[in-house]
Order: sequence, then C-alpha cells, then structure tokens
Amino acid sequence: MKLGIIGLGLMGGSFALDFKSIYPKSKIFGLDKSKKNENRALELGLIDELITLEQLSKVDVVLVAIPVDKSLEELPKILNSVNKDTLVFDVGSTKLPICEALLNHPNRKNFLATHPMAGTEFSGPNAAVEGLYLNKNNIVCEIEKTNPKIYKKALRIFKMLNMNIIKMDSKSHDVHVAYVSHLSHISSFMLGKTVIEKEKNEKNIFDLAGSGFESTVRLAKSSPATWTPIFLQNKNNLVLAINEYISNLNQIKEMIEENNYSTLSSILNNTNRIKQILTK
Amino acid sequence: MKLGIIGLGLMGGSFALDFKSIYPKSKIFGLDKSKKNENRALELGLIDELITLEQLSKVDVVLVAIPVDKSLEELPKILNSVNKDTLVFDVGSTKLPICEALLNHPNRKNFLATHPMAGTEFSGPNAAVEGLYLNKNNIVCEIEKTNPKIYKKALRIFKMLNMNIIKMDSKSHDVHVAYVSHLSHISSFMLGKTVIEKEKNEKNIFDLAGSGFESTVRLAKSSPATWTPIFLQNKNNLVLAINEYISNLNQIKEMIEENNYSTLSSILNNTNRIKQILTK
Repeated sequence: MKLGIIGLGLMGGSFALDFKSIYPKSKIFGLDKSKKNENRALELGLIDELITLEQLSKVDVVLVAIPVDKSLEELPKILNSVNKDTLVFDVGSTKLPICEALLNHPNRKNFLATHPMAGTEFSGPNAAVEGLYLNKNNIVCEIEKTNPKIYKKALRIFKMLNMNIIKMDSKSHDVHVAYVSHLSHISSFMLGKTVIEKEKNEKNIFDLAGSGFESTVRLAKSSPATWTPIFLQNKNNLVLAINEYISNLNQIKEMIEENNYSTLSSILNNTNRIKQILTK
Repeated sequence: MKLGIIGLGLMGGSFALDFKSIYPKSKIFGLDKSKKNENRALELGLIDELITLEQLSKVDVVLVAIPVDKSLEELPKILNSVNKDTLVFDVGSTKLPICEALLNHPNRKNFLATHPMAGTEFSGPNAAVEGLYLNKNNIVCEIEKTNPKIYKKALRIFKMLNMNIIKMDSKSHDVHVAYVSHLSHISSFMLGKTVIEKEKNEKNIFDLAGSGFESTVRLAKSSPATWTPIFLQNKNNLVLAINEYISNLNQIKEMIEENNYSTLSSILNNTNRIKQILTK
C-alpha cells in the first residue's frame, strides 16, 4: 500500500508510525509546506520519500493532517490530483466547513471526513508518537457521500488500528466537539493566561504548581497554528459553549460570595459524576 | 518516633506511607471522624493503632489532614492535648484563616502551617499512595511563630522526604494559590458542569472525550468536602481570580466573534510560555 501524508506534524507523523506498524511493507510519501519538517520527517524515518501534490495519483491513500483553514484551501487541489480509487481523509477537529467546501467537488466521493479522538499538546514531526491512533474513537461524518468501496478501504485501515468508528453528521459533530474538546482548550488557554498575567514572577507559578494546575493547563501548550482556525471555524457553537461556561463561572462565584456552602457543595458533588462518565 | 494522624484520607493516608518509608521503626496512630475510614486505614496498614484527641500527648508529631473548615474547629483542641515538644502541622490549602485562628493559642509555638504541593483527584484512605510527598515543594508559613526546635524537627522530616521548603507569609500564600491551584479547580469543575449540562446523552461525552478533555476536567473529580471550604476560606482572593478569568474568556470570545485571527493566534502563542515556565 502506498500512503501519502500531507502535513508532517504530530497527527501526520504519528499516523505514519502507526500505518507502518500495521502495513510494514507499505511505502509512505510525505509533503509539508515547511522544508525543515520534511527533512526532519525523513531523518526520523516517518516517511520514505517526499512527494508533490501533482504526484498524488500514485498513492492509494492520502491523509491530510494540516490546520483546518489550510485544509479548505488544499483539499480541493488534492482531490483534483488523485486517481479514482484513492481514499483521501482528513483528521481536522471541525467537520462542517470542510464537508461544505467539498460538497460539489467532482471527486467528493474519494473523500472521507474523519476526526480521530487522539492527540497530545505537542506539535511538529518531533512530536510524532507510536500508538497515537490505536484503540481510539474515530468520528466519521457524511459517509453516504463517500464511494462505498473507498469507505470500506478506510474501515479496513481503521480496524487494523483497532479504532472504534462512530458515525455522525458533520453539524452534530461540530456542536459536540465545541463542548467536549474546543471549550477545554479555551478554558485551559485562558487559565494559563490569567495565571501568567497575575504571577509576574514566574517562579511563583513553578513553585506553587501542583500536578492539578499542570494537568488543567496542559492544553495551553497546544499549537496556535492548529487551534486558531479551529476556534474560528467552529465560532457559532463555541461562542455558545463559552457563554454557558461563563454563566456557570458567574454562578459559582456568587455562591462563594454568599458563603453558600450547601449549594456549592452539591454542585461540586453533581459534577463529580464526570468520574463515572469517563470510566464507562 | 510516634506519629499521630488526624484525618485518614488521601493526604493523611499517603503521609503515613511516606513516613513509614523514612522511619520504618515509627509507630503511627490515626483518628478519623468516620469509623469506616479508621477501619480501612487499619486494614490497609496505613496506621498501627487508633488514637483519641486526649491521647495525643504521647506522640511526637501530629499531622492534621482534614478539610480546612474542620481544621479551624479541631486544631485548637489538638494543640490543647499535645505535650510541649510535639510538632503539629496541617496540610490545608488555605493558610491565613488557620494562622489567624491560632494566633493567640497558648500552644501556637507547637504548630507549623504547611502546604505541600501534592495531591491527586481521589479521596479517602483507599486513595493513599506511596511517594505522594517525595520531592515536592512544601510551603511553610509564619515560621517565626513556631518554636525553633520544633520547626527544626519538621525540617528534618521534610528533608528526609526530599521536599523543597519555600517560606511564605500566609497572606501571600493564599493569594498565589487562589490563582495557581484554586482557580484550576474552579475552571475544571465548571468545565465538567457545562459539558454534563449540554450533553444530556452521556455517551457523547465518553465517545468524544479525548485525553485533552480528560486532563482538563480531571480536578472536577475532587472531593467536595475538601474543596467547598477551601473556596469559601479563600473567597476574597478567589473571587478576584475568577473575575480575571471571566474577563479573559470574554476577551477571547470577542476575538472569535470578530474572526480576529492574528490577535487570537498571538494570545495563544504568548500563553504557550506556560510550557517553559512549568519545565524550568
């Protein structure tokens, strides 16, 4: 099998490693707008060879792992270059805009909109890790627009990676991830910003940071090139989510101001349910 | 050495394990308002024997590891019961209220106000883990009010645990932890609440939760009995911190609404500094 990867960062590089582990005889081609990333991906052995957009007709599968604003620009061109049996899929965190953008593309049937629930706070080819995709949930959207044979090819790969497939329409996907993923990033980034602004003396942050702060602020290390366009593409859903979050913060603030032990305690107690939900 | 532990939960139970590892010949006594916790602590071998408040005069060191509102009630009684050389220290997350409450206690010199930067989101004796205190930062407040000989006894124990001692006045301590610890808990609890309210179908949370959501919402699993009184005791500082957090959330929301890519990206980029700060 021949795989072409557009974007040799965390998501593309890690996919290369996992793909090689399930198809050891495959040949992996790569392309990145950064020469440095391309060279690093070659050095690390993530990819076997470089490729150009024009040469994509020679591969069987194309993974697009670039920021979601760049996907809107590049995916139409990529779909123009592939042959009729090629599977093209992306791993972006927003799905409605890309599905809308490709709706009338003559090769729409070659494309599968996917969102694997996988990632870390790091970025670039050096962040590539083996196993990132293994055993993860993988949302696929609007599968009826993908050629069934090509969709099956995708399923075979995802099955080899032991991924759990969840079908969703792209609009619902974007609503849900606004809450479960994008709001987490906003809350973490703004926590980091608030603490950095307050603690001019950074030593205080370091000395006082327990593991609690570290895990809550972890996502604030994430790549701005990845997350800025995600926030903007999911603006409508995300703004609603932020408003509800702010409203909850105002509510708990009032309870604290009023020394309302019992309501405060009961809210924390209800929210403890997240423990059971996440370990289901 | 004889150690008495008041409160046999995560902090007390874990201290028992670490204390036994540095003083294998020590004898550890325990007391908890819950009979069930006492029995469990005995079963787990966290403590050797139960003890009553009245019997505390026979131990060399007393650790108070109970919710901070209970500490205000119990610490004066505990200090009444100990002998003149006994070290009594607490591990609560607020320091000004307890220091104020004990200011004129006749045995104030036996007490050391401490806050080890250690913990997990779990609670109760079953949550006790070995190594929780090892190599951690440990804030000590108002050490001038502790008898120097007794303070040295504390330092010897903390040194054996390889803890890094940071001296701070209790007022500054409470300001800093409002940002670096308490606000993290608020942000995490409210993220959990917002997502649970939105996702009536809990399966969506589970399916869509990547490791990002899990780490950001981890602290929302924390004990309400521990955290409700912390939030209330640190009300003034915490309300300010929540206000600044909300103001930052409103700011980023506006940038998203205005499609302001460059400012949004530059804010995320500046906040990425947390990466360097936390790995210093």
